[in-house]
Amino acid sequence: MKTVSVIGDGQLARMMQPAAVELGIKLQLLAGAPDSSAAQVIPAVTVGDYHSTANCLAVAEGSDAVTFDHEHVPSDALSAMLDAGYSVQPAPSALINAQDKLVQRRRMRELGAPVPPFADISSVEDAQNFWNEVDGNVCLKACRGGYDGHGVWFPKDLTELESLVAELLEAGTPLMAEKKVALTRELSILVARNPSGEVKVWPITMSVQENGVCAEAIAPAPDLAPELAQRATDLGVQIATELGVTGVLAVELFAYTNDEGAEDIAVNELAMRPHNTGHWTQAGSITSQFEQHLRAVLDLPLGDPSASAPITVMANVLGADEDPAMPMVDRVVEVARRFPNAKIHLYGKGHRPGRKIGHVNLTGNAADAATVAATRRDAKLAAYFLVHAEWADQA
Amino acid sequence: MKTVSVIGDGQLARMMQPAAVELGIKLQLLAGAPDSSAAQVIPAVTVGDYHSTANCLAVAEGSDAVTFDHEHVPSDALSAMLDAGYSVQPAPSALINAQDKLVQRRRMRELGAPVPPFADISSVEDAQNFWNEVDGNVCLKACRGGYDGHGVWFPKDLTELESLVAELLEAGTPLMAEKKVALTRELSILVARNPSGEVKVWPITMSVQENGVCAEAIAPAPDLAPELAQRATDLGVQIATELGVTGVLAVELFAYTNDEGAEDIAVNELAMRPHNTGHWTQAGSITSQFEQHLRAVLDLPLGDPSASAPITVMANVLGADEDPAMPMVDRVVEVARRFPNAKIHLYGKGHRPGRKIGHVNLTGNAADAATVAATRRDAKLAAYFLVHAEWADQA
Ligand SMILES: Nc1ncnc2c1ncn2[C@@H]1O[C@H](COP(=O)(O)OP(=O)(O)OP(=O)(O)O)[C@@H](O)[C@H]1O
Ligand SMILES: Nc1ncnc2c1ncn2[C@@H]1O[C@H](COP(=O)(O)OP(=O)(O)OP(=O)(O)O)[C@@H](O)[C@H]1O
Repeated sequence: MKTVSVIGDGQLARMMQPAAVELGIKLQLLAGAPDSSAAQVIPAVTVGDYHSTANCLAVAEGSDAVTFDHEHVPSDALSAMLDAGYSVQPAPSALINAQDKLVQRRRMRELGAPVPPFADISSVEDAQNFWNEVDGNVCLKACRGGYDGHGVWFPKDLTELESLVAELLEAGTPLMAEKKVALTRELSILVARNPSGEVKVWPITMSVQENGVCAEAIAPAPDLAPELAQRATDLGVQIATELGVTGVLAVELFAYTNDEGAEDIAVNELAMRPHNTGHWTQAGSITSQFEQHLRAVLDLPLGDPSASAPITVMANVLGADEDPAMPMVDRVVEVARRFPNAKIHLYGKGHRPGRKIGHVNLTGNAADAATVAATRRDAKLAAYFLVHAEWADQA
Repeated sequence: MKTVSVIGDGQLARMMQPAAVELGIKLQLLAGAPDSSAAQVIPAVTVGDYHSTANCLAVAEGSDAVTFDHEHVPSDALSAMLDAGYSVQPAPSALINAQDKLVQRRRMRELGAPVPPFADISSVEDAQNFWNEVDGNVCLKACRGGYDGHGVWFPKDLTELESLVAELLEAGTPLMAEKKVALTRELSILVARNPSGEVKVWPITMSVQENGVCAEAIAPAPDLAPELAQRATDLGVQIATELGVTGVLAVELFAYTNDEGAEDIAVNELAMRPHNTGHWTQAGSITSQFEQHLRAVLDLPLGDPSASAPITVMANVLGADEDPAMPMVDRVVEVARRFPNAKIHLYGKGHRPGRKIGHVNLTGNAADAATVAATRRDAKLAAYFLVHAEWADQA
């Protein structure tokens, strides 16, 4: 069949392997360490550094497509791979919109996509002006390198904003600011596009963030007006198409209540790779985001993204403050016994507080409020037990 | 988590890898060649021969359980691993019933499981007697080593039976004979059992054999009386329990019309590993047979075997007489374009006529006759195209 080189060795690369095994696709990995999450499960591993152009070129050799499990590959390495004739998916020209929040915001405004008011922050004065413009509702962001809420600040007063900005600019961090949105919830559009231009969109997903980290995803998003779901879907297609994205694109959305009192959306972040809010597709869609990503980067026709269950919930397994004494396998036993229908995913990672070490997918057989609530409760109980070795519903 | 050693390098071992990746289980493989189907996708591979006790012991090292993707590991090697303290699943005492058809038939009779009349054939005279007993409706079988219809004969007259038996006994092949059943169709019970004694049964599956090879599986089996489905389910639990099977057990069944004119069943073969008639579980059950097998051999609680779709069809991709010029990836493109909901599985094997090189799973969203027929048609069209590079429904 075909060979895909993957730069990045985390759980996203790891979870491409089951889809690759099924489709008969060979993966070649550039991994930072021989025992990293993805390197544990893929035979063809080059150990190296994704900052190194030479290492990137080495892993690209013999591939039909090169792709990523994160957005941090430097432009130099991307260009070198393109120059050497490799099929880099997504292309750097698309990827920049997932690498730089200011570039992305400008591009979204150009496309007419809804975004909060925002500004380039190159000086303390810029910050002061923006503070006044949005009545102090300021969200300050590092343009690059943020993840899981790192690189996002909500200063409580102008003094805090001024000193933050002075300090960060001093340290060489490019900054932007945007209006703090009165979020009612967060949603996510998961789209895939292949180089031939075919685009498919999964049902719109609701996500729950805790401390800046995705804790839960629910799909299809409950209580979403069909008109808004359609608008979000169209927006996903538009962004994927106009940016020339290839592979999976996640468009993180803010949901808020507009002046007419209705639920409305604005774009937050873009990610061009399988995304945490799309893990539910492993259990709840005909085509998982990992299979779709591989199909897309190889320019194969895309799979059916329809939901295969009325409701699917994904709960992240996030390292507890302290790792309990009970071995992980015994925790799995307890969870598997209580929830025989739970799909447990473990990433082969050691303990660290807050670290994403796995997730649990659970499907419900109806989409009424009670079933959704029960499915969410059970998925979260399962994920909680896997890190705390305790049932959150028992004293 | 845990480590499972797998002896055997075909598609069944290969398809354990996606489930292992998800659950965080490490697989160690004993493979006949470094590029065999399973060895392509599993990092920890020992290249060796499963006939070699030393090789089996080597791959068992460090494992929490040892299991198989075929029944042909010699007793010596099995005993040596047990003696060395490894957890061999299934145990040799259970496995013998999948290795030797005569042992199995005797055991089934003991259990009161329905089997056709049968006899040990140690001489031409035994064959003559059995011929008379069953009015010439004889099916002759090699007790060991058969697969995909090899080792099964239907002599058309007594002379043919006599010369076959003489020849085979001369060659040292242990033989049995059984009554040729007037099959109406074939069914399969898929069960899993863990060492703690937990047993779970998937919905009863219908399978279609062509030239002695499984061509298609449909689950849940259409038009199966609930009473008969229950009886088959109970039979699966009984066999798994009384034989002490661990891991997946497939009980191949003959369906026939009994004296009351109703559909009835008799046991044909046992297989103690994931089975071709269970591939549909990858797309159509909460827990696939590959995940369940790993859970079972590690004595983890078993997953929910419920169907997740009203109907699922699996069609085997069997090497054509001649391999068409169109590259496999182009065939995949055509099939993926026509059937975006087809789950294509390729085993990384080269062409050989009749060889199992992949399968296609397809779910239908209703279980009425028209949907079942359409799903079967589409799955078979997809599988046919993957080997012939032609649509069977186009001139
Ligand atoms: N303008 C805003 N108004 C209100 N809340 C915001 C705003 N921007 C970000 N947030 C909150 O902070 C979280 C993290 O922000 P953002 O997604 O931009 O950062 P990130 O670190 O790149 O996140 P991730 O890794 O999850 O993509 C958001 O999920 C949201 O809860
Ligand atoms: N007693 C019988 N009466 C009628 N047909 C039979 C009988 N035994 C076997 N067959 C036919 O021959 C096929 C192969 O037989 P069997 O399953 O015993 O052999 P095998 O080579 O071990 O098969 P497999 O590899 O599929 O398990 C069966 O699927 C069935 O179609």
